[in-house]
Amino acid sequence: MNTPAVRRPNRALWRGAHLATLRPDRPWGWIPDGAIVTEGERIAWVGPAAALPAGLAVDAEHDWGGGVVTPGLIDCHTHLVYGGNRAREFELRLQGASYEEIARAGGGIRSTVQATRDASDAALLDATLGRARVLLREGVTTVEIKSGYGLSQADEARCLRVARAVGERLPMTVRTTALGAHALPPEFAGRADDYIEALCDWLPGWQAEGLVDAVDGFCEHIAFSPAQIDRLFSRARALGLPVKLHAEQLSNSGGTALACRHQGLSCDHLEHLDDAGVQALAAAGTVAVLLPGAYYFLRDTHLPPVAALRAAGVPIALATDHNPGTSPTLSPLLMMNMACTLFRLTPEEALAGFTRHAARALGLHERLGQLTPGRQADWAHWAVDHPHELAYRFGHSPVCRVVRAGQPVQEVLA
Amino acid sequence: MNTPAVRRPNRALWRGAHLATLRPDRPWGWIPDGAIVTEGERIAWVGPAAALPAGLAVDAEHDWGGGVVTPGLIDCHTHLVYGGNRAREFELRLQGASYEEIARAGGGIRSTVQATRDASDAALLDATLGRARVLLREGVTTVEIKSGYGLSQADEARCLRVARAVGERLPMTVRTTALGAHALPPEFAGRADDYIEALCDWLPGWQAEGLVDAVDGFCEHIAFSPAQIDRLFSRARALGLPVKLHAEQLSNSGGTALACRHQGLSCDHLEHLDDAGVQALAAAGTVAVLLPGAYYFLRDTHLPPVAALRAAGVPIALATDHNPGTSPTLSPLLMMNMACTLFRLTPEEALAGFTRHAARALGLHERLGQLTPGRQADWAHWAVDHPHELAYRFGHSPVCRVVRAGQPVQEVLA
Ligand SMILES: [Zn+2]
Ligand SMILES: [Zn+2]
Repeated sequence: MNTPAVRRPNRALWRGAHLATLRPDRPWGWIPDGAIVTEGERIAWVGPAAALPAGLAVDAEHDWGGGVVTPGLIDCHTHLVYGGNRAREFELRLQGASYEEIARAGGGIRSTVQATRDASDAALLDATLGRARVLLREGVTTVEIKSGYGLSQADEARCLRVARAVGERLPMTVRTTALGAHALPPEFAGRADDYIEALCDWLPGWQAEGLVDAVDGFCEHIAFSPAQIDRLFSRARALGLPVKLHAEQLSNSGGTALACRHQGLSCDHLEHLDDAGVQALAAAGTVAVLLPGAYYFLRDTHLPPVAALRAAGVPIALATDHNPGTSPTLSPLLMMNMACTLFRLTPEEALAGFTRHAARALGLHERLGQLTPGRQADWAHWAVDHPHELAYRFGHSPVCRVVRAGQPVQEVLA
Repeated sequence: MNTPAVRRPNRALWRGAHLATLRPDRPWGWIPDGAIVTEGERIAWVGPAAALPAGLAVDAEHDWGGGVVTPGLIDCHTHLVYGGNRAREFELRLQGASYEEIARAGGGIRSTVQATRDASDAALLDATLGRARVLLREGVTTVEIKSGYGLSQADEARCLRVARAVGERLPMTVRTTALGAHALPPEFAGRADDYIEALCDWLPGWQAEGLVDAVDGFCEHIAFSPAQIDRLFSRARALGLPVKLHAEQLSNSGGTALACRHQGLSCDHLEHLDDAGVQALAAAGTVAVLLPGAYYFLRDTHLPPVAALRAAGVPIALATDHNPGTSPTLSPLLMMNMACTLFRLTPEEALAGFTRHAARALGLHERLGQLTPGRQADWAHWAVDHPHELAYRFGHSPVCRVVRAGQPVQEVLA
C-alpha cells in the first residue's frame, strides 16, 4: 500500500512468532513474541517485537501468524550420495538370512559401492537431490554431505561433485567431506596401507577442483586403524583441510584422541568413548556428534557417554547420519526424539544439537546456527507453541515455512 | 476426448504401478504392472494390466506413472481425541525431574483428562482433525479412535462425538471405541468398582446416540482388574457391542484370556503375553495388535512374543497407539520400521499389520484391508520401487496420492 524507502541491501521485517534463537545466554535463546529484521542474506536485528526500533523503514513485512521460529536446522553428518538402496537386505535379514546369504545376495556396503559406481552422474544427482529435498522440507538449510561409496579416484570425485551440485541446485548450504577412508575398495583388498597412500595422492586433485571442505575416515577394527587414519589426516592437515572422524562406534580404538591431535572439527558416533576420549574432546574443542539413528537401526545397546560429555562441557551435535546401510532416515526431528528417548538428551540439547553445535561441527558457528545479528538469515517456522514439542512428537514434521539466506524456500509448502 | 459410455456406478480404470494387494495367497499379494477397475466406491477388478478385459468401457482413466499401490493404511488403535499435549512433561523427565515433581507440575494422564475436559468442543475437534489429517497424508484411510480422556458421562460422549465427526469431515472410515475404562477419574478415587458400574450404565445411552462401535479397557494393576473388565465386557456384549482390550502391557494379568472369552476383536500391546495367552488368541481368532511406538517411547525392553504369535497363526496388526503420554506419533510407516527393527517383524508382516490384519482387528476385513474385487476402493500410492521400502526407511513418507472409496483425497498433495 505505502511506498517503502528502498534500501540496499533489501530490508525485511518478520514478526508474529516466538523465537528460539539458540543464543546460549538463556534457555532456548527464548524471545517470546519476537521479531527479526533481515538485510539481504543476513540478520540485522533480533528481539521482542515490542522493542523494535521506532521508525524502522523496511521493504517488506511478513507476519508468521503464530508458532515458533528456530535457526534453520543443520545436518552435520550425512552420506547422501549413493546408488540403489538396501531395503532388500533389510528384508532378508528380517527373514532370518545369514550374513553369508546376504553377502551372496549382494548385500553390505559393497553392494552400495557397486550401485554407486554403476549409477550415471544424472541418476546419482537425481537421487541425492531427492534426499536433500526431504531434509529441506523438514527445515534443514545446511547439510554436510560425504563421499565414501565411490572408493576410486574417479568415483569419489563424482560423488563430491554431486554433493557440490546440491548446494547449487537447492537453497541449502552444503559442506562436502571426502570420506574415501570409509571402506576398503575391492581393488585394494588386503592392501589397506596402499589404499591410504592412494587417498593421500588423490586429495590434492580433489582439493584443487574445489570438491573438499573436510576429510573424514572410519576408524574401527573393521575399517581403518588409527595409524592409517593418522597418515591420511597428516596429509589433509598439510593441505590445510580440516578433519573429522567416525570414531568409537563399535569399540574404543582411540580414534577420538587421534582426531583431537589433528584439531578435528568433530568426532562422530562415540558409543564406546572412554573418559580419556571425553577429556581429549574437551581440551581440543572438538564437537561430539551423536547419531541416534544408527544406534537405533543397529539395535545397539552401548550408550554414548552423554553425562560425561555434558559434564566436560563438550558441545554435543546430532545428525541423521543418513546412509542406506545403517541409518536410512531423513528426519532431524525424529533424531531429536531418539536423542532424548534413547540417549536422554533434553529437548533443548537436542535442538542445540541440530543448530548451534552442528554449526560448530562444520566450522560454521560464526555464520550459522543461531538467530543473532550478523548471522545468515536461515530459519524454520514451526506450527508448535513451544520448541520442546519438536523433540516430543515422533514421525511427523510441523514445519510451516523455511527461510534461507533471507529468502522463503519454495520447496517448502506453507 | 472421446465420449465415454456413461454407466452407474461410475467406472474408472487405474494403471501404471505395481500392486501390493495384500491378498494372502502370495507374498505381498504382488501384481507387477497392475491395474484396478473401480465402480463407484468399490473395486470391480484387479489384475495385471496385460490381462485387462478387452473392450472395457470406462468413464475415467488414470495413470499412476510408476510406483507401488497398497491398500489404504488402517490405524486400528489410536487415542486421537484429547486436549493439550505432554511435551512439558517429556522435557521435565529428561531434565531429571522425579515423578512427584512431574505430578506436582500437573503431569501424567490426569493432566490430559483435565485439558480434555477444559477444551471446548470446537478446540477438541480442531486438534483431533489436525492429527487425523497427518495420518491421512501418510496413507491412512481408516482409523479407530478411542475416547478415554473424558472419564465422565458427558466428556466421554463429547470425545466420541468428536471421533465420529472426523469421519464426517475427512475422507476416512472412522471406528469409535468407548474407552471409559482407561483410568480412574478423580471423582471415583478409591471406588473403581463404582466407576465400572457407572460406565455400564452410561454405555446404552452412548450406544443409542450411535457413538460406540466397540468397547475397550485398560487391564493392568495400575488400571482395572480382570474382574472389573469382565463386568464391563459382559455389559457390552449384552448390548451387542464388540470388545477389545489393552492387555499384558506392563505385566501378565490375564486380560487376554478374558477378552478372548468375550470374542474380543483384538488384544493390544501384549509385551508380557504368555503361551496360554497366545493359544487363547489363536483359538478365539482374536487379533494381536502390537504397538511399537509405546514400546519405544517407554524404553520398554520386554518384547512381545512375536515368534509364538506367528507360530500359532495369530494375525498380527500394528498401530500408532497415538496418545500424548506414551506414543506421540502419527506415522504408520515409522511404526512399520519399529515393528521390524525392534520386534523383528518382516517388512511384509509390517504392511499386513497396517492393512489386512488391521482390518480384521476392527471387524472390517470383509470390506477393507486388501485390494480385491468387492472391497472398498481405498489405496495409497507410494513413490517406491518395492513395498519393502515402506518399512526400511524411517522418518519420512514417500506417499504420492491417496484414494478413498474410489475418490482421490484432496488433502494429499501429489
Ligand atoms: Zn557416518
Ligand atoms: Zn492405547
